[in-house]
This record gives sequence, C-alpha cells and structure tokens, in this order.
Amino acid sequence: MSSMLEEIRHQPDALDRTLERGLREMRELNRRLKRDRPRLVAIAARGTSDNAAQFGRYLIEITTGIPVSLAAPSIVTLYKKGLDLKGALAVAISQSGESTDTNAVLKSARKRGAITVGVTNNSRSAMAQTAEYALLVHAGEERSIAATKTYTGQLLALYLLAAALGGSVRAEELRRIPGCVEAVLRQEARIEETVERYRFMNGTVTVGRGLNYANALEFGLKLMETCYVLAERFSAADLMHGPIAIVERAFPVFVFAPPGPTWPSIARVLKRLGELKADTLAITGGHAKALKWVRKLEVPALPRAQSGDLYTPIPYIIPAQLFAAHLARVKGLNPDRPRTLSKITRTM
Amino acid sequence: MSSMLEEIRHQPDALDRTLERGLREMRELNRRLKRDRPRLVAIAARGTSDNAAQFGRYLIEITTGIPVSLAAPSIVTLYKKGLDLKGALAVAISQSGESTDTNAVLKSARKRGAITVGVTNNSRSAMAQTAEYALLVHAGEERSIAATKTYTGQLLALYLLAAALGGSVRAEELRRIPGCVEAVLRQEARIEETVERYRFMNGTVTVGRGLNYANALEFGLKLMETCYVLAERFSAADLMHGPIAIVERAFPVFVFAPPGPTWPSIARVLKRLGELKADTLAITGGHAKALKWVRKLEVPALPRAQSGDLYTPIPYIIPAQLFAAHLARVKGLNPDRPRTLSKITRTM
Repeated sequence: MSSMLEEIRHQPDALDRTLERGLREMRELNRRLKRDRPRLVAIAARGTSDNAAQFGRYLIEITTGIPVSLAAPSIVTLYKKGLDLKGALAVAISQSGESTDTNAVLKSARKRGAITVGVTNNSRSAMAQTAEYALLVHAGEERSIAATKTYTGQLLALYLLAAALGGSVRAEELRRIPGCVEAVLRQEARIEETVERYRFMNGTVTVGRGLNYANALEFGLKLMETCYVLAERFSAADLMHGPIAIVERAFPVFVFAPPGPTWPSIARVLKRLGELKADTLAITGGHAKALKWVRKLEVPALPRAQSGDLYTPIPYIIPAQLFAAHLARVKGLNPDRPRTLSKITRTM
Repeated sequence: MSSMLEEIRHQPDALDRTLERGLREMRELNRRLKRDRPRLVAIAARGTSDNAAQFGRYLIEITTGIPVSLAAPSIVTLYKKGLDLKGALAVAISQSGESTDTNAVLKSARKRGAITVGVTNNSRSAMAQTAEYALLVHAGEERSIAATKTYTGQLLALYLLAAALGGSVRAEELRRIPGCVEAVLRQEARIEETVERYRFMNGTVTVGRGLNYANALEFGLKLMETCYVLAERFSAADLMHGPIAIVERAFPVFVFAPPGPTWPSIARVLKRLGELKADTLAITGGHAKALKWVRKLEVPALPRAQSGDLYTPIPYIIPAQLFAAHLARVKGLNPDRPRTLSKITRTM
C-alpha cells in the first residue's frame, strides 16, 4: 500500500490528537489574542499549506469579521519590502516548518510588530522557533510527498485559531469531525470503483466556493502531483466569469457541493454543467439528490446540519484524497514519488 | 478583423487618455488619502478585473508597505458577514461597473467605515455611484468579450492609486508606457508567425511572479476564454512546489520573465524547464539572451531599467494578448464570441 493511502486512513487518529492536544496547548495564545485583538490577519504558506491558508481566510473572516490577507512571500524575499503589520496577527503554515520563504515572512512580520503564529507538524522546526507561538499539528511524520493528513490537521488547527480569535467555532462540533472522516473512509471501495472510469483523464476542472474553495484547490493539486492530470481550479463564481468556455460535452469537472450558504450558487453551476453535457462528479450530501445528471460521491450528513457548511471542509476533502490516490494507482503511478518533486521546497 | 485585435491595438491611445484624465480627476482622492492614510487596502473584483486586482496587491504592498487583502465576495453575498474595515480603503474593480457581487462588497465596506474607490470603465455604472470615489478607466466601449484594453487601463489606474497612497510611482515613467506598448505592437507579425506552431495545443501552464504574476493569470484566462486551451496558472514559486510534476518533455509552458527582483527566481524555473525538456516560451527582454533553450518574445527594454520590473506589467501583457487573439484565429475560433459567455456576469 502507498504511504499516501496509509496516511489518508490515519486521519481520524491524527485529527483527534491535533484537536485534544491543541485545546490544551493553546491556552497562552488564547489569552494573548483576547487581550490584543488583531485588526488584520496575514497568512503565509506555499503548496498544500497555502490551500489550508485559503480555508483559514474564509473561516476567520466568516466567524470573526477580521479581514484576512494571504501574504505574497516575494514581497519580503525578492522585493525586500516589510509591510506595516502593527496590530496584526501573522500566521505561517508549513508541514515541515522549514519552508524558507514563509519563515522569512514570519520573521519580517515579527520585527514589524505583528503577533506571530507558526502552524507546523514539526515542533523542532525553524518555524516553531521563529514564531512567538507554535500551533502544532500532531499528524506524526508524513512520508508521502503528497500531503494529506497534514492538510486536514492544518484545517483543524485553523479552527482552533478562529476560536481563539473569538470566532463562533465550538469544540464539541470539532470533536465530531474524526467520526465523520471515519464514515467517509468506509466508502473507499465505492470510490475505487468510480475511479476506474477516469483512467484516461488528462485534464479537468475542479470547483468549490467559500469554505470549500480550498478543497477545490487541494484536490486539483493532488491530481497534478500524483496523477499528472492538468487540473485548473476555480471558485464557482470565477468559473462562470469566463473559463466556463473550456467546458465542452464530456469534459470532466469535479465540484464540491456541500449544504449551506454556498449551495444555491453551486447548484446553479451544476445546472449549467448539465446544460453543457459536461461529465460532472460532485462531492456532496443528500441535499443534491434531485440533480440526476450529476455523478455523486456522498459524504454522510454531519450531525449539526444547522451550522451550514462550517464543519464540512475536512470530511469533504477525504473522498478527493482517496480518489487521487486510487487514480494514481489505476494509472500505474506511484503517488508517493511524484516525478521531479522532493518533500521540502526551499523557495527564494 | 476581430474586435479583440482592434482593441488590443487601441491600447496606446486608451492608456494615454486614462493617464492624462486620471491625473486631473484624482486630485480630491489624493487629498483624502493623504489625510486619512489607510491601514489596509481590500480589493474586490472578478475575472480579468481580479487579475488586475492581483497586480494591485503587489504594486501597493511593494510601493507603500500597506498590507492588501483580496476580498472574497462570497463572505458578503453568501455568508452575509461584514468585515471590520474601519480605517481601510476598499477598492472594487469592474469593466462594466455592473458586477453585482463586487458592488455588494463595496456597499458593505462603505457602510462599515472604509474609504471606497470604484475602478471602472463606465462612469454611469452602479459602481461609479456606489463608491465614494470613482477612478475611471477611459478605454472607450469594449465590444470584445475578452477584455484587453480595460485590463491594461485598470493596471494604469492602479498605478495612479498607488501614487495617491504615497507609493514611489512617477507620472513621467507612466507617460513612457504607451510608447512601449506601441513598440510591442510593432512586433505583431513576429508573434503571428510564432503562434502557428501552437495550433494543436490544448493544455498549458502559464507562469509569472511578483508584479507579473497577474499577467500569468490574465494570459491563462485569455487562452481559456478565446482558444479553449486548458491553462493552469502559477506563480513561479508555487509551480516548483508540486505542480511541476505535470510538466513533461514537450509540454508547453509560457513564462513572464522581466528583468528586476524576480529574475533570479524566474531564471531558476526556466533552467528547470530546460532540464525537463519542456517547450518553453518566455516573454522577456535582452537579459535572457543566454538561455538558448527558451523560445522568446522580446519586449523592447524600458527606458528606465533601474526601476527593475516596476513598469513592466503593461508592456509585458501585450505579446500575450496578441498571441491569444491570433491563436484563436489559427484555431478557427472567433475570439469576440467565446462559447457560453456573455459580457456582464451577475454572480450571486
């Protein structure tokens, strides 16, 4: 079995550990953020961690109303410009904690007066040392180059951060997530079957919106890294703003379609894709039953449907991770060793 | 001739008009921003205008040090959350000024205490009415669905805005840009020739970094809208962080490679693409001469090379616009009427 598949299956444990330890380890950061409520949150990351950052942007803005900026590391590393971050919270995210450019952003932000937090899977990393506060993902060592359990761990850590910022995120809801993930993992055989028909796919579009936009980015990245499928990634709104032109009859499109505030917008996209006779697969729940022309991977309903899509992103990425890992296998590729890649990328 | 091609060729005039009128029309906004220096700039846009917003983010951060956030309209329109934007400047960008979701962001920001600016090509639009200050693009009516002259017009307007925020942008340098664009337009025949070999391309990757990252987004969008080429778009740093795996021998890649602070990073990407035997075309200048394995579309050197890449984005997008318009023709498509698109997209 590939490490990627193994690590996908470890996620209920990893999430549970990250949550319980996180709740204990965050007390000091909690007090600090209560005392000095930031006027702005700036998040820096690369690759999969940058997809988690996108989730963090929506989560923090939706639950706290504090504006979030996704930092462009080159401003610091290449243009040598420090931003005015007095009164801001700077968050860097990196699995290894050794990503040179996100650490450079963190260092610059700390020097310029920001409260700094490093979200990392490695407590002994440069990032854990550079940040004033380390917010640890406890996913265990990640051997697969394609990150899975650290992505969902980062999402969970960001829920804890949103709660620390006063956001309406509840620990008892977070505690239900590992069980939901478990339930999705039990559908692996069904996903394996579905994957067969995508054997020869070499280009696709992935779509999400709001809190699940990050999942569209992450699914597309996994398809590129492990299956060498050219995957263009869109928010549902941006797709309709031009790029929908590339979608033709039988063109494969993957759509994250959870219940909640984004559903009407996503349903319109699904309807349009139906008119275009695109080959559409939705990761969705029972609410999408009426859309007969859409192939579906169903995520079991979360216990608290009234919270809309707030707790959907972690369970919803699981079918996509399984899909990518099995598609790689079906294509005769080794998802643990993508060509031309190594685990830590030192960007300048 | 297609309207798209016609409008590409009108750009020197349109830019000149936008610049000269803009300098006169902005006096009041200048005074306001001098008096109330914003602590944060939030920019909202969709489609091509969103690519201009990406440019604005880099430009404002690099030249002023004020952090910039690219707004996610769904926070306001779907999640019904207003952000705390006291002391912020909110900028919305839309060619037509009738994009419903960017206008909703603008309205929400104004209600919550932000200074508001609308960058639009339509002085009678809802956006021009909704914003406290209208910053007009004077590109004339845009008939082609694929935006070209309004994109460069928006870039120019954003230079004026950065200057108003105290950024080191000089009017006499901006005045040289229409002439540079003119010089690139004179190379149209050379670009037409180059386009021939891409006749059967159906997937590609476009790459840029820093101030020219927006151009990679915009070129990719043009290829999708007008040529139905699946174009995945990356910053040079993000490409190296995973997606480089999709690049194989003879895979077509387009790279914006201006001189200045991003050049060492871009040169490393070009080197790696050479090792992978990718089919690489760079939009670049004389500084890239040594890279023999890279096909080049050369942009004549800008008069003030010592300003690095600060004034490159407008001249550098021109070869890409011409490329997309001619590739559409070569593929037997009408770039003015992309399938399934209309000019104004009302997103909810």
